[in-house]
Amino acid sequence: MATTLLGLFALLAAPATAALFPDCANGPLANNTVCDTTASVAARARALVDALNIDEKFNLTGSTSPGVPRLGLYSYQWWQEALHGVASSPGVTFAPNGDYSYATSFPQPILMGAAFDDALIHAVATVVSTEARAFNNANRSGLDFWTPNINPYKDPRWGRGQETPGEDPFHLKSYVASLISGLEGSPDSKFKKVIATCKHFAAYDLEGWGTTTRYNFDAQVNTQELAEYYMQPFQTCARDSNVGSIMCSYNALNGVPTCADPYILQTILREHWNWTGEGQYVTSDCDAIQNIYMPHDYTATREEAVADALKAGTDLNCGTYYQTHLPVAYDQGLFDESVIDQALIRLYSSLIRVGYFDPASATPYRSLNFRNVSTPASEALALKAAEEGMVLLKNDGILPLSLPAGRKTNITLMGGWANVTTQLQGNYAGVARFLHAPLYSLQQLPNVNVQYTSSQGSIQFPTTGNWEQLVTAAENTTDLIIVADGINNNDESEDNDRYDISWSPGKIDLINQIATIGKPVIILQFGDQLDNTPFLNNPNISAIIWGGYPGMAGGDAVVNILTGKTSPAGRLPVTQYPGDYVNQVEMTDMNLRPNASSGNPGRTYKWYDSAVLPFGYGLHYTNFSVDVVESSQTTYNISQLVSSCDRSQYKYLDLCPFDSFQVNVTNTGSVASDFITLGFISGQNGPKPYPIKELVAYQRLFNITGRASQTATLNLTLGSIARRDVNGNQILYPGDYGLLIDVPTQATWNFTLSGSPVTLDQWPQRST
Amino acid sequence: MATTLLGLFALLAAPATAALFPDCANGPLANNTVCDTTASVAARARALVDALNIDEKFNLTGSTSPGVPRLGLYSYQWWQEALHGVASSPGVTFAPNGDYSYATSFPQPILMGAAFDDALIHAVATVVSTEARAFNNANRSGLDFWTPNINPYKDPRWGRGQETPGEDPFHLKSYVASLISGLEGSPDSKFKKVIATCKHFAAYDLEGWGTTTRYNFDAQVNTQELAEYYMQPFQTCARDSNVGSIMCSYNALNGVPTCADPYILQTILREHWNWTGEGQYVTSDCDAIQNIYMPHDYTATREEAVADALKAGTDLNCGTYYQTHLPVAYDQGLFDESVIDQALIRLYSSLIRVGYFDPASATPYRSLNFRNVSTPASEALALKAAEEGMVLLKNDGILPLSLPAGRKTNITLMGGWANVTTQLQGNYAGVARFLHAPLYSLQQLPNVNVQYTSSQGSIQFPTTGNWEQLVTAAENTTDLIIVADGINNNDESEDNDRYDISWSPGKIDLINQIATIGKPVIILQFGDQLDNTPFLNNPNISAIIWGGYPGMAGGDAVVNILTGKTSPAGRLPVTQYPGDYVNQVEMTDMNLRPNASSGNPGRTYKWYDSAVLPFGYGLHYTNFSVDVVESSQTTYNISQLVSSCDRSQYKYLDLCPFDSFQVNVTNTGSVASDFITLGFISGQNGPKPYPIKELVAYQRLFNITGRASQTATLNLTLGSIARRDVNGNQILYPGDYGLLIDVPTQATWNFTLSGSPVTLDQWPQRST
Repeated sequence: MATTLLGLFALLAAPATAALFPDCANGPLANNTVCDTTASVAARARALVDALNIDEKFNLTGSTSPGVPRLGLYSYQWWQEALHGVASSPGVTFAPNGDYSYATSFPQPILMGAAFDDALIHAVATVVSTEARAFNNANRSGLDFWTPNINPYKDPRWGRGQETPGEDPFHLKSYVASLISGLEGSPDSKFKKVIATCKHFAAYDLEGWGTTTRYNFDAQVNTQELAEYYMQPFQTCARDSNVGSIMCSYNALNGVPTCADPYILQTILREHWNWTGEGQYVTSDCDAIQNIYMPHDYTATREEAVADALKAGTDLNCGTYYQTHLPVAYDQGLFDESVIDQALIRLYSSLIRVGYFDPASATPYRSLNFRNVSTPASEALALKAAEEGMVLLKNDGILPLSLPAGRKTNITLMGGWANVTTQLQGNYAGVARFLHAPLYSLQQLPNVNVQYTSSQGSIQFPTTGNWEQLVTAAENTTDLIIVADGINNNDESEDNDRYDISWSPGKIDLINQIATIGKPVIILQFGDQLDNTPFLNNPNISAIIWGGYPGMAGGDAVVNILTGKTSPAGRLPVTQYPGDYVNQVEMTDMNLRPNASSGNPGRTYKWYDSAVLPFGYGLHYTNFSVDVVESSQTTYNISQLVSSCDRSQYKYLDLCPFDSFQVNVTNTGSVASDFITLGFISGQNGPKPYPIKELVAYQRLFNITGRASQTATLNLTLGSIARRDVNGNQILYPGDYGLLIDVPTQATWNFTLSGSPVTLDQWPQRST
Repeated sequence: MATTLLGLFALLAAPATAALFPDCANGPLANNTVCDTTASVAARARALVDALNIDEKFNLTGSTSPGVPRLGLYSYQWWQEALHGVASSPGVTFAPNGDYSYATSFPQPILMGAAFDDALIHAVATVVSTEARAFNNANRSGLDFWTPNINPYKDPRWGRGQETPGEDPFHLKSYVASLISGLEGSPDSKFKKVIATCKHFAAYDLEGWGTTTRYNFDAQVNTQELAEYYMQPFQTCARDSNVGSIMCSYNALNGVPTCADPYILQTILREHWNWTGEGQYVTSDCDAIQNIYMPHDYTATREEAVADALKAGTDLNCGTYYQTHLPVAYDQGLFDESVIDQALIRLYSSLIRVGYFDPASATPYRSLNFRNVSTPASEALALKAAEEGMVLLKNDGILPLSLPAGRKTNITLMGGWANVTTQLQGNYAGVARFLHAPLYSLQQLPNVNVQYTSSQGSIQFPTTGNWEQLVTAAENTTDLIIVADGINNNDESEDNDRYDISWSPGKIDLINQIATIGKPVIILQFGDQLDNTPFLNNPNISAIIWGGYPGMAGGDAVVNILTGKTSPAGRLPVTQYPGDYVNQVEMTDMNLRPNASSGNPGRTYKWYDSAVLPFGYGLHYTNFSVDVVESSQTTYNISQLVSSCDRSQYKYLDLCPFDSFQVNVTNTGSVASDFITLGFISGQNGPKPYPIKELVAYQRLFNITGRASQTATLNLTLGSIARRDVNGNQILYPGDYGLLIDVPTQATWNFTLSGSPVTLDQWPQRST
């Protein structure tokens, strides 16, 4: 024990953001195999762990790792964030000014998800990992990042839905695959660029609802929906993208805290998904090991909590519960030394994979510096990402704005988002070189005069009174009124779910009243979704744009869309629910399917049919027609589909190709615009109830000019047309299916699967 | 209409914090009777209003009043705050530095309430009004202040309970009477010092609970509890203290939005309580007039909402709904001009009463300046107020601390409140000259070495991990561990009720774990009450002090108590409920009495008997014995009590004296200490159910030295021994009563009321 305490004491003296590399040339480890770049990763990690005594091992299990001074192993902070750019976090230190005082700040994932553009996500993630490496080289960051948050966003109240790309699992899987490859680099490379961490595994999904908090929530999820929905993004992370790290979550799942659950951490994650590559490790969410003991009361002692978590396969503890309590748990015989060795081998294998024990010359990543941070190209990409995501929800023809050149157009701008700063970024943000609010960007237009007053009420003194004054004053002089409002991280954030998804009654009243004075009104709605019914139904409201949390260039993006410099083509990545939805289903109810007895009307577009605006909705400055190019085949034999799959190429049956469908997309208007081709499957096959439809493919087409056409290719896999049964098994069912194109559906291609059902994926059951 | 709009436009050009006085010597009003200081207030106000045209009148009904330029009537901002010191608000402007860049910042009322010292409150309010006048003279504030918040704090979840003195109506009435006289000055004076505003009238009581918000809440309150509890502080404000202003609230009361309710604004407030003095006016809460229309849906149109509010007696609108919609409502014939005249006469009478139209020489208040702000005496009073309020909840004898002179005592300090800044102040705060956190104040002790690390987790990254590191590191060297924690305005504030009143499980675990290392642990619990059961029950936790929101000198106060420089004597002004209480009664349930069918276990100490620590609880550094000096009389005839009251002195029967009781208080220990003598009445008379007991008197005795005695005098009135029936009538009932002294009860004096019941107050019923 005494050694352990001294070790922890040493930790306090270590630099807060140490990312110094061990000296493999002349340091104490120089002759240890960990420094032998010709040895296997496994042998290198094993050699390092073999050099440690048991107290040193305990010390290395916490997120603030003291290292081992006698071995020249520096302290290491495992906690870095980079949700939409390198972000302020315990392991990331921005300089107060000058170099490394900022990084590119992209939109929140919820807006980038609306772009339905996997290549964009890959490009964004590549910038993030480049900037992360630059920060690391300046000793301002570690090499692992606790991003992405990839829990499917199934309830509009969730305060962290903004951190995700949306509600659809296929969409999340495509998104996260692109993201991980951008963050970690090629899976075939000897060196990972950085280590990504898919969180929060699994069924996390709420911050606080009444007295239920993320810390004490026991998510009750049936096996079918666990397999088909909650687990799907993590399957991509682990099985298909070989992500470096997974974070277990605060909540319990069907009675077992996830960080102590061998069913999900071992049976599913490591065995079923074969997530056993070099250095793949599980970290706990912060203090989640403590939460096994309290408030989950899952173990009788603190020592059992740490032993259970370690044995279940949680390799790293965000917090100090491992460091503090593993020693006594070990003395109590609650686990063998081989278990902690296994955890440390995983952790240090991961650092070996990012070149931590290799010379700087081994990888070009070590040469990146601040000249690679927030470059003009990266900042342009932040603007492009915001533009691609924004969704046009209503337009009576006023947009794009006609701003005559010969005179100034008077625009009255109001609302809580008009002149925001860091609200543009949402949560888990870094420092941006600039933050362009709508006000700033409007003021850059040469032929516009913006009327704005900053005294429009505040968080401390919420009154919308001065809005009216502004409008009344401008009544005779303004040409156009723009209301930039919505919600922000005061309304929704970590630890803070919403109880209400409607606009506040005061704002509804005020905006509708403003709309009576006879001037066009455009609403820019930022933050997450609000029930826009009162404004969609009001003919005096000319247009609505949803702008999410658009990042550093958010004002520029929305102004480019207003003026038509950019045509909007984003689609809602979530359902826009009516305000009363929050009264119909409990936040803690994890069921997706409607349930008459509980009153649950269903969750997501797959199961809920009364949206204000549906998932996938989005208007353009032009119109598009779509049609599916006729295929030679309309009937497929199931056994033939399976047997014709090249298993040397496709390890998992759900990834085997089914068929590719060409969709002709024609811009029937005159304004050039992107178009997102969305393909859904519908059918009444397999276990009841049947989903309304399910997204199986999407492709964003770029800059289709007026009267021109482009062709989208929708590549469907066997997984696209399979469903999960009550045991979570993924099965191809014979029957009639439709491929539905666009939202609302503009074209349908019908086909039939014949033969007997075939199981693609046998889901492991929890042993009872 | 056009004139009105121009008027509103003029408003925009006015200074934001204008408090310029009209030029009654040479200005346009010089010959108007409003400037005739020999005329009656009524005549002066009437003359001003007679000089206005109807559009000017409309303009003057909003909180941001444009004035009337043609009459030399400057714009006036009615919205000032001063809850516990002159506070940042639309009408108050602190200078960026130098003079007027700060003001004295007293503790939040919840802590000042715990002092049970009416003279202290009067002194504090006198400082606040002096500083307010100084700010006004520098054109940095108006002359009316929207304070106090005097809704009884009946549910521990309420986010604004901190703004009140506590849960007991007698206590609140005594407190608010002292406060108002300190703010407004003597009621007999020609000039009021400032105008106070009792808010929120009535039954406001929640910020948000699920989808119920303060804006849409319809409080269902029965007549009995309305009269005996929710209305009582306002009765004191209006009937007994003649407060200048009352604010109607956001909520509806039994179906009627309070700002549109003639039953409470006219029948009760103005008729039953005779609140018809010079310049007494009702202001709405901010946008509360709008809320009549939406979300209350109480009227079909906006015009009906403003007309209903004006006719009900709401004279001023915080917001612009009156200014915007009264003109059309007037055109629609929804009210007569005499109604708006009445409102304006009240408003301008109130300004006449503060000398707004009198020469500067008329009142010494006009000579106050920054030399009168944050004086050494005022800052010493802020310290005294904090010291008097703090409550010792547990002490195994470790306190007061023994700090040997010859060596340094090593103190490990941790927790989220250790090094706070503005959190010391709570909400509705101003800028303080300094903010002394516990860390700062501990560091000032000459013989103490404080071990502290700032990296103890944060709001953005909540992890308590580093606490452990600090303790583990200090394990061998520290003499004492102090945990300064609790909750703050991130957990509870305006618009933000709590759902949980327990310590977080993580903190419970961590603090109890810290307590196992064998060093004494003292908890300083700040913010509002938390269920302290886990620490009260842990014998390794040596002491707990509750420190509320202690203001600018909060750290000094708690350190003075720790060291014994000051002896603690505060008493809990609220019940400390068990954590599970929040599951037993809905936040929206306004019933105070227990109800078996709803599960409501009762509210406040009067009706709830399972407190963790009861209302009135508080330990000392010594022990006290109390006994009631025997009275000659133990039986009182009710009719004789009533008939012997001098009605020329006591206009209301409940204020008539009943009897005075002397209580001998003896310090049986050796440490000098204040002692708060609390007197409760109990009995089983009048309508069932019977309250457990009810506070009827208190007196704080000062500095009772060891073995010495002092005598408290508890003056009971007829109101003290009366109860309210189901119709709200206040009645003296014959029967046996007990006067219980102290918490827990240390002495009881029994007496009997004989004869027939007599009604002291006939409560007006809502006409149906």
